Amino acid sequence: MKKSFGPKTLVFPTPVWMVGTYDKEGKPNVMAAAWGGICCSRPPCVAVSLRKATYSYGNIVERKAFTISVPSETLAREADYVGIVSGKDADKFAAAKLTPVRSALVDAPYVGECPMVLECRLLHTLEIGLHTQFVGEILDVKVEESALGEKGLPDIEKVRPILFDPEVNTYHGVGRFVGKAYKIGREIP
Amino acid sequence: MKKSFGPKTLVFPTPVWMVGTYDKEGKPNVMAAAWGGICCSRPPCVAVSLRKATYSYGNIVERKAFTISVPSETLAREADYVGIVSGKDADKFAAAKLTPVRSALVDAPYVGECPMVLECRLLHTLEIGLHTQFVGEILDVKVEESALGEKGLPDIEKVRPILFDPEVNTYHGVGRFVGKAYKIGREIP
Repeated sequence: MKKSFGPKTLVFPTPVWMVGTYDKEGKPNVMAAAWGGICCSRPPCVAVSLRKATYSYGNIVERKAFTISVPSETLAREADYVGIVSGKDADKFAAAKLTPVRSALVDAPYVGECPMVLECRLLHTLEIGLHTQFVGEILDVKVEESALGEKGLPDIEKVRPILFDPEVNTYHGVGRFVGKAYKIGREIP
Repeated sequence: MKKSFGPKTLVFPTPVWMVGTYDKEGKPNVMAAAWGGICCSRPPCVAVSLRKATYSYGNIVERKAFTISVPSETLAREADYVGIVSGKDADKFAAAKLTPVRSALVDAPYVGECPMVLECRLLHTLEIGLHTQFVGEILDVKVEESALGEKGLPDIEKVRPILFDPEVNTYHGVGRFVGKAYKIGREIP
């Protein structure tokens, strides 16, 4: 038996990402975002939705670029902080002791301490309602060498990304290996 | 030191969702999708991107509705299967022994066995490239009562959603509690 929760933004899993931008004066800003996901394979694109009221919103409209830095569990406190405080009021990189690294590909900074970063140029802007969705073309994905595993590929258990539970308001880590994609389903005739 | 992987759809975490639709004849179909995420809080919306070549694509265009069913780890095999086989060739609900439940709110079926389901009416369609993004307004979220925890809220450790690693092609579970959102960041001055 299922219980009805009504119309709400409740789904699992949602990510914890840090969106990096520059403001008009070139000050780096970073905010937390959980409303997003990959949205196209060719060109490779990622979508992230922000409220117009955020400082980052204006930055993306102005600079037509943003980065997504994937914090590891060890950066959960910093990721939470940049989701609470506005870049209008604070230099969040400085306050959280995070390093803004200027992207060589797009006009935006990423978080040096994060094990995985995506550098994106703005491709589409979709007004939906309270949130505006920015679709960014992924020009590069960079991963910390210490987070690479077998065959030199990123190891999710070393990146240790964070999940956000949007109903209970909690963060969770990545758990055990469940199975191989495009393989375990072949057991079904 | 970070290693560059180039322009690709590589980010953590990405979800494993099952998208439910009806075809023209009313046959229920379900496919796996990892390209998606919440994209607006008001109205509550979720985005999911599909290739035009999929059977589900035509179904959503026709019916202007879809559901998202969140499989638990125990359904990883079924979720993988519905991502491998096309609804053009098979009755995937029947083959995977899944139950199509007709939504009372939108013109689409959901997977009865999944602990969490979202019923969505199509709000926007965005052509991006290989993928088309469908933005659905979430009319209801239903959660299995056995997956509820304290205070009657969905418990992520009972829902046990699956994560997809799009580079190594593996599925992973949810791990340990990391911290409280909107709280642990307040330790930073």
